Amino acid sequence: MQNFGYGVLRVVNPYQVAFREAVSAVSAAPLLQSAQEFDTVADAVADCSLVVGTTSIGHRELQHPLKLLAPGASIIRRTSGNVGLLFGSEKFGLSNDDLSHCHWLMRIPTVDQSRSMNLGQAVAVCLYEIARSQATPTEPKRTRPAPMRDIEQMTQMLLEASRRSGYMNPVVATSTENKVRRMVRRLNLSARDVSVWMGMLRQILWKLGNSK
Amino acid sequence: MQNFGYGVLRVVNPYQVAFREAVSAVSAAPLLQSAQEFDTVADAVADCSLVVGTTSIGHRELQHPLKLLAPGASIIRRTSGNVGLLFGSEKFGLSNDDLSHCHWLMRIPTVDQSRSMNLGQAVAVCLYEIARSQATPTEPKRTRPAPMRDIEQMTQMLLEASRRSGYMNPVVATSTENKVRRMVRRLNLSARDVSVWMGMLRQILWKLGNSK
Repeated sequence: MQNFGYGVLRVVNPYQVAFREAVSAVSAAPLLQSAQEFDTVADAVADCSLVVGTTSIGHRELQHPLKLLAPGASIIRRTSGNVGLLFGSEKFGLSNDDLSHCHWLMRIPTVDQSRSMNLGQAVAVCLYEIARSQATPTEPKRTRPAPMRDIEQMTQMLLEASRRSGYMNPVVATSTENKVRRMVRRLNLSARDVSVWMGMLRQILWKLGNSK
Repeated sequence: MQNFGYGVLRVVNPYQVAFREAVSAVSAAPLLQSAQEFDTVADAVADCSLVVGTTSIGHRELQHPLKLLAPGASIIRRTSGNVGLLFGSEKFGLSNDDLSHCHWLMRIPTVDQSRSMNLGQAVAVCLYEIARSQATPTEPKRTRPAPMRDIEQMTQMLLEASRRSGYMNPVVATSTENKVRRMVRRLNLSARDVSVWMGMLRQILWKLGNSK
């Protein structure tokens, strides 16, 4: 919840021993410490304008419209007012009584053989999807591509190394040259990388030159 | 992993006590029981054609291209061959050495105040996003990417050439090694090109060896 910027956690009728222990732990997150406790689902969602239940079951609850996470999340994002996202216990999910407080149900698309998810993971996936287009993606700056001048210079150095090392067969030199030239261009080198490559090749050439 | 249909779990150098206990537990999932164990990241990703590291940090690792989860997942879906998704320990994340085996890094978009995620939740969110729309329009066939085994072999040959030619300063050898490793991965070599490169480097190494 914290990772995706959601701050209001409400628990309904929790198992008191475990809940008290978790809330009062030294390492308890502020979000957990400020969790609000309710006796009934009705109380917990009283100030919500939309209540969405989560289920892994699929087609059993015919009483409720069922949406997959992505289209469901898109409706949630566009809803004004508080939205309550209701999760059941890990073992039993939501009861029919719980479900009766929901406008509709939402399901994370999983493989059919393994539908039931870990509760914390299900919450994380739902909130990721709901938050996804809030955060405008700030892509890192693309690296500057190397100018062809440098690409060709690197090609020449590589060809020279091939000659000095005996890799290139003089009989098919032209075809090998073209092959190497195309190959270097396929690398899509950045300006920064091409200078590292040239530094390396320069040193190799110097050493190969010495050995002639 | 099971929820989203992914079946191959590989662990690198796990804490043996906890790992043995988890795998041999009566309730252990088949996926965990069949987890493969490796000593090094290089071995674990040897048959992958793309290796993606995960990070919560954002802008510290300037050495690597960083993508947000959604655009990153879209690339992963379109990649042919095995894709390795690399997660670090919950406490420390991935080391610089781990990162040097990655082509690029991926980040789950979180709020700035709370970037570090629970490991299981981070895995769930990543796999949900990667699995979300399998039915993407089929891309034109790309050339077959080189397996990481070959990429690493080429890296080792290039490093050896750097040593023999005197390019590599022994004082900063580790940092140079990581730099070169990252650089080779940025080339996105095809299976065919990598064998040409290795042929060239083999010949250069032979000649450099002679000159010692």
